[in-house]
Amino acid sequence: MNNFTNTAPPALLTDLYQLTMAYGYWKNKMHRHEAVFHLFFRRNPFKGNYTIAAGLETAIRFLQNFQFSTDDIQYLGSLKGADNRPLFEEGFLNYLQRMQFSCDIDAIEEGMVVFPHQPLLRIQGNLIQAQLIESILLNIINFQTLVATKSARIVQAAQGDTVLEFGLRRAQGMDGSLSASRAAYIGGCHATSNVLAGRLFDIPVKGTHAHSWVMCFADEIQAFTAYQNAMPSNCIFLVDTYDTIEGVKNAIRVGQQLHAKGHELLGIRLDSGNLSELSQSARQLLDEAGFQKTAIVASDGLSETKVKALKADGAKISVWGIGTRLVTAYEQPALDGVYKMAALRTSSQDAWQLKMKLSNTPIKTSNPGILGVRRFYNADYQPIGDMIYDALLPATCRLQAFDDNQYDFSECAYEDLLVPIFKNGELVYELPDIHRIRNRSLQSLKTFDPLGFHQSQPAHYPTGLAINLHQQKTELLNKLSTT
Amino acid sequence: MNNFTNTAPPALLTDLYQLTMAYGYWKNKMHRHEAVFHLFFRRNPFKGNYTIAAGLETAIRFLQNFQFSTDDIQYLGSLKGADNRPLFEEGFLNYLQRMQFSCDIDAIEEGMVVFPHQPLLRIQGNLIQAQLIESILLNIINFQTLVATKSARIVQAAQGDTVLEFGLRRAQGMDGSLSASRAAYIGGCHATSNVLAGRLFDIPVKGTHAHSWVMCFADEIQAFTAYQNAMPSNCIFLVDTYDTIEGVKNAIRVGQQLHAKGHELLGIRLDSGNLSELSQSARQLLDEAGFQKTAIVASDGLSETKVKALKADGAKISVWGIGTRLVTAYEQPALDGVYKMAALRTSSQDAWQLKMKLSNTPIKTSNPGILGVRRFYNADYQPIGDMIYDALLPATCRLQAFDDNQYDFSECAYEDLLVPIFKNGELVYELPDIHRIRNRSLQSLKTFDPLGFHQSQPAHYPTGLAINLHQQKTELLNKLSTT
Repeated sequence: MNNFTNTAPPALLTDLYQLTMAYGYWKNKMHRHEAVFHLFFRRNPFKGNYTIAAGLETAIRFLQNFQFSTDDIQYLGSLKGADNRPLFEEGFLNYLQRMQFSCDIDAIEEGMVVFPHQPLLRIQGNLIQAQLIESILLNIINFQTLVATKSARIVQAAQGDTVLEFGLRRAQGMDGSLSASRAAYIGGCHATSNVLAGRLFDIPVKGTHAHSWVMCFADEIQAFTAYQNAMPSNCIFLVDTYDTIEGVKNAIRVGQQLHAKGHELLGIRLDSGNLSELSQSARQLLDEAGFQKTAIVASDGLSETKVKALKADGAKISVWGIGTRLVTAYEQPALDGVYKMAALRTSSQDAWQLKMKLSNTPIKTSNPGILGVRRFYNADYQPIGDMIYDALLPATCRLQAFDDNQYDFSECAYEDLLVPIFKNGELVYELPDIHRIRNRSLQSLKTFDPLGFHQSQPAHYPTGLAINLHQQKTELLNKLSTT
Repeated sequence: MNNFTNTAPPALLTDLYQLTMAYGYWKNKMHRHEAVFHLFFRRNPFKGNYTIAAGLETAIRFLQNFQFSTDDIQYLGSLKGADNRPLFEEGFLNYLQRMQFSCDIDAIEEGMVVFPHQPLLRIQGNLIQAQLIESILLNIINFQTLVATKSARIVQAAQGDTVLEFGLRRAQGMDGSLSASRAAYIGGCHATSNVLAGRLFDIPVKGTHAHSWVMCFADEIQAFTAYQNAMPSNCIFLVDTYDTIEGVKNAIRVGQQLHAKGHELLGIRLDSGNLSELSQSARQLLDEAGFQKTAIVASDGLSETKVKALKADGAKISVWGIGTRLVTAYEQPALDGVYKMAALRTSSQDAWQLKMKLSNTPIKTSNPGILGVRRFYNADYQPIGDMIYDALLPATCRLQAFDDNQYDFSECAYEDLLVPIFKNGELVYELPDIHRIRNRSLQSLKTFDPLGFHQSQPAHYPTGLAINLHQQKTELLNKLSTT
C-alpha cells in the first residue's frame, strides 16, 4: 500500500494552542484531570433539513495511530517563546512522546441523519489528550459530514438517476479530493472518477474520454472509432467537441458498428450548451436509431440547483457527473462544527463538575453533561423526535424542543444514536464497510421521507433537550451569570 | 519524517478517463505521440485584479515520484468493463508500470502575480504521460493558487498588520489544511496555528489558549495566572470567556505580575462581540495601564470583507486570526483552472500540428501553440503589459490585448515568466525556500501597486496575445469552423 494515503495523519496535525495548553496543564499538575468534550455543529448546512454524519472511520484511523514521532518532538523542542528560550521544557516533551491514547469515545455512526447540537462524537478521558485531538477531529468530521450531506441532497435532486463524483481537479488539495470521494459515496453517489479513491475506499470508478481524445484525431468519427476499437466495453462518447447534434449522430454511427460486434453504446456525454434541449434532441435521435438503453450523461459545472432545474425542465439526462460543486460544497464550503467542554473532574475518582461555554447568542451556549442522543419512533418506525440527554440524569421521555414546544414520547420505541468506539483507548467498534455505510445513509434518510426532508422547504421534526437536561442547563446558566 | 506528509501523491491519484484514454492511445499505437498542454485559469478569483501563482513545488514533488506501484497495477488489472472482462490488457499494465516520466515542463514561479489565460504550467512531451498528470496538477495548482490569492487580498486589507492563518479545523481535509497553510504563507500571511504545517514547510507557528483553558479554572484570574506561571514568554490571553471588558482588566492584572517577573503581556485576544468597539475600549484600558505594546488579536469568523470593515471603522486590532474564510476561500472555493491541448505531433521528429478547443463562448476557446508569457516594464520597473506568445512564431512587441486595444512595447524591458522546471523528465529547477517565495509574492504585487491592484475596484492592466499569435488563432478558428 502506498504510504501517502494509508498512513493516518500524525499527532502533530493540531493547532499550536492545543500544545501550549497541554503544557500549561502539565506544568500546573493537571495532567490527571479528566474532561468530557462534545463535537457538534450548530446549523444544518445548505439551509437544509438534515445532515449526514461522516468521517468517523478516518477519525478512528487517526486515533489508533495517535503518537508523537521523534521528529515531532524534536521540532517542538526547537520552538521558542518571546524570550528566545525553548517554549516547552524537556520533561513535557518526554511526557508527550510517551503518551498513549486512553480516552473513551462514543459516536454517531457514519451515514446517520443527524441534527444541530447533537454530539457526533463524545470524548471522555484525559484532559490533555482530549484537547490535543480537537483540531484534527473537527477537520475530519466537519468536511466529510459536509460533503456527505451535499451528496445526499444532489442524489435526492436526481430522483433515482445515477450520480457520479468528478471532483478531483477542483478539490481542495489531494486529501480534499480523496475524503470528498469517500463522503460523496457515503451520501449516495454511485461512483467516482478518482482512481485512487476507488482503490483505497472500494468505491466504483467511472470514466471514458475527454475532449483532448477527440482533438487527437482528424475528425470525430475517427476518434470514436479508435476508442471503440480499443475499449468496446466502455463506450460513452463525449459529443460536444465540435457540434453536439452532429456528435450524437457520429456516436450513433459508431454505436452501430459496436452493436454489430456484440457490444453496446453505453452512453453519450454532454458537457456544454443547453443541456435540457440537447438532451431531449439526443434522446430522440438515440431512440429513433434503436439506442433506447444508451444513457445520456451530463457534466458542465453542475450543481444541486442545476440538477433540480434541469429535471423540472424535462431534460432527458440519466447520469449526472458532478465535480466542483460537490467536492468543495461550493455553496457553503465549511460546516460550523465545534468542540466544547461539558464536564471536568480532577481525577477519575472525583465527581464531574458541569461546564458550559456562555455566549450572548443563546444558541451558542453549549450543553453541559455527558450527553447522548435518543431517537424516538412511532409504530411505523418513522422517527418522531430526537432528544439530547445527560447520561448522568434519570432517563425521561419528555423533550423540551428547540421549537419551544414540549413533547412526550412515553411508550415510544427509541434508539440511542451514540455507540461506543474506544474504551480506555482501545477500539471496541467493528468498522462497517463503506457499502453498508452508504446503505445506512440511504435508509436513514428514507425514514424521514414522510416529513418532506427531500424538499427545499423547511420540514418540521422536533429536536431538543431532555426536560431534565434543559432544567440543569437553565440552573447552571443562572448560576454562571450571577457569579 | 512521517510518511503521510512527505510522500508525494501517487500516480493513481488521477481520473479514470486519463487511464482509459492512455489505454486507447496505446492500443491505437499512438504512444509515441507528443503533445503540448497548458494549465491556465480563465478568471481572477474573488472578482479581483490579480492572482498569485502557487503550488509548483508540490507539483514538482509529485512529478519527481511519478510511477505506478505494484498495488496500483494490480488494482487497475481488477477493473472490469460492461462485458465483465478486464478493462485493461496486461501489455498496457506492463507499459504503465515501466513508465518513466520524460516530459519537459516550464512554469511560472510560485509567488508571481499572474492573469487569466496565461499558462502557469506548460507540459510538452509524451501524450500519454501529459494526459495522466492532468488531474493532479489541476488539483494542486488550482487550490494553492486560490488560497495564495485570498491570503494576499487579506494581507492587503490588513494594511501592514500581522495576519495569522487559523484554519485547520474547518479546512477541507487534512491536506486541505496543510496545503492551505503553505499557500496562505506564500500569499503573505505571517504564521499559522497548524503545527505540522510549521514543521513541514518551515512556517512560523503561533498559539496560546482557548476558552476551554479558562473553563478549567475557578475564575479567569486563576486561569490567566496559571497560564503565565507555565508559559510566561507566550502570554496572549483570550478575554471573552465571560465578559470581555472584565477579561481585559484581568489580563492587565496578570500582565502586571508578568511584568514584575521580567516578561511582557504579548497580547489579548477578542473572539466575539463588537470587535470594533471592544478593541477600542481594550486599547484604551491597556494604554492607560502602560501596556502600549500589548497587541490586540482578533478572531471570530473573520474574512477579507470584515477586516476591511473593521479597519474602516477604526478598530484597534493589530493581529488578525483568520481561519475558515481563508483556508476554504469561502467566497469562491475553487479556481476555474483548466488543462488544454495546444499542439500535437506523431513523434518527436515531426512538425507540430496546432490544436485548439472550440467553444460557443469565445473566451473559452483555447490558444494554440507552444506558449510563453512576457511581462513588459517601463523605465521605473513598473509592469506595463503581459503578452502570451507562441515560441514557434517570431518575437514581437505588439500586443493584441483582451481589452480589444493594441499596444506596442518596443524598446521596453521585459521578463519571460515561464522558466524551465523539467527537461526530458529531469528536474532542472532549483527550488527556492518558502520565505523567498513569500517575498516574491509581496514584491511582485508591490510592483503593481501604482495600478491600484490593492483596491476593490477593477484596475486596468493590459494583458492579451502577441499580435502574431492572435492572427494564428483567428486563422485556425476560421479553418476549424468551416470544416
